[in-house]
Amino acid sequence: MGERSPIPKDWRKAIAERMSRVRHKIAVVSGKGGVGKTLVTVNLAAALAMRGRVGRVGILDADIHGPCVPRMLGMEGRRLEAGPPGIFPAFGPLNIKVVSMEFLLPTGDSPVIWRGPLKMAAIRQFLSEIVWGDLDYLLIDLPPGTGDEPLSVVQLLPDMDGLILVTMPSEVSEGVVRKAVNFARKVGAPILGVVENMSYLICPHCGGRVEVFGSGGGERIAREMDVPFLGSIPLDPRISIDSDRGVPFVIEHSDTPAAKAFMELVEKIEKAVEGG
Amino acid sequence: MGERSPIPKDWRKAIAERMSRVRHKIAVVSGKGGVGKTLVTVNLAAALAMRGRVGRVGILDADIHGPCVPRMLGMEGRRLEAGPPGIFPAFGPLNIKVVSMEFLLPTGDSPVIWRGPLKMAAIRQFLSEIVWGDLDYLLIDLPPGTGDEPLSVVQLLPDMDGLILVTMPSEVSEGVVRKAVNFARKVGAPILGVVENMSYLICPHCGGRVEVFGSGGGERIAREMDVPFLGSIPLDPRISIDSDRGVPFVIEHSDTPAAKAFMELVEKIEKAVEGG
Repeated sequence: MGERSPIPKDWRKAIAERMSRVRHKIAVVSGKGGVGKTLVTVNLAAALAMRGRVGRVGILDADIHGPCVPRMLGMEGRRLEAGPPGIFPAFGPLNIKVVSMEFLLPTGDSPVIWRGPLKMAAIRQFLSEIVWGDLDYLLIDLPPGTGDEPLSVVQLLPDMDGLILVTMPSEVSEGVVRKAVNFARKVGAPILGVVENMSYLICPHCGGRVEVFGSGGGERIAREMDVPFLGSIPLDPRISIDSDRGVPFVIEHSDTPAAKAFMELVEKIEKAVEGG
Repeated sequence: MGERSPIPKDWRKAIAERMSRVRHKIAVVSGKGGVGKTLVTVNLAAALAMRGRVGRVGILDADIHGPCVPRMLGMEGRRLEAGPPGIFPAFGPLNIKVVSMEFLLPTGDSPVIWRGPLKMAAIRQFLSEIVWGDLDYLLIDLPPGTGDEPLSVVQLLPDMDGLILVTMPSEVSEGVVRKAVNFARKVGAPILGVVENMSYLICPHCGGRVEVFGSGGGERIAREMDVPFLGSIPLDPRISIDSDRGVPFVIEHSDTPAAKAFMELVEKIEKAVEGG
């Protein structure tokens, strides 16, 4: 955009202070919704925690309209508690620290009818007034698209490690990923790479492979846009069941191809942001 | 919301004039993205046109951040032409009249980094300055969630027939549908009913039924929220292939269970809005 940061200096200072104790900040984005961005976020967080970081991983659910992180982590109905240093995140599985708009809404069914500037204020407070403590990783689950929230977060966190783009194999989904890559480039955010979710299904009855949503889109788009391809996550009916039960799939079904795909993904991300 | 309409009188007049020649206006919404809202929209439009309404069905692609309607109808790269009465929609399969932000962007890969008020202006112009002509049905594909665009369209079209809510069977998706129902009620929009997409897959290798994303969520949520359940659309790998090829599935594969489910859906919608 070339737009100058519209963030007042004192906001930036407050955010920088809190965020100085967070080693790596990664935003998970998608060009469109429903590609499993939140699923990828919570399972990445769990996989990161499983690799020696219990209590040192956080998730900021910045999807203000459809916050799904609490449900996928079995944390619905939780509330945030405030103390002298600020507001404390809620603790999920493997002591993942979670902040979500869901925790602040009167009931789980309330829609958030908010216009841009209010959303911006909410995200700013999530970054500056939450007592995140010392974290190795903070994953930020952004709402889909290239609208107010992604723009706000990118402006509020100029030093983030980068974005992970989640897509599906179908071309219709690819087109919107291309938009998301261009968005990231325009606002100057680094791109860690592309993850293809729902790549294929292994039929539980016959073991046959079914490409439910086409094939190869993630890798193709990564090559075309000259960004790293981080990996493919297959479909598995148990992923949906675990999400509904509020248990991260990588913990519950750690020996499945999908869970192994998540662990490989995490290794690549660690390598990208920690070096080595 | 109980909020008074912030729409100036002359805008409302211009919209009312254009819209007076459109018999039925239906918005297709979802609480979250990726449940196949656009897929449902284009296939509903095609099914409506197939039932004796060639040239009398329109689609307004109001998803400004991820406009997918043109791609699914094989209309990428098309442009809108202007004449003395206004701007003309582009013609798709079965002469469906289509207007999309995609037609106005410099290239298909450009992200639309717009803030709320600009989006509102774009949608207003789509409704008031497009020469839709005489239509039996105008389907409005809204972006997911309860943000600026859905709010704008509801405010701009006080006489719409109602909303169709698209969901997936999984509970995580259900929760956000509940929010969308509450959103519709708060802004005073009628709800035509709930459609469950991606209900199950018939394995192409063995014919076994796979509930990829759980089961029964759409019907359950409709019952709980006391709104009509309009039907279930099964998964079919050919749906994704047809979408990528830009051909509506109901036209290309009219003899499949999924296409038949769309035709039944259309009959229910006709009954709901035309009476009988």
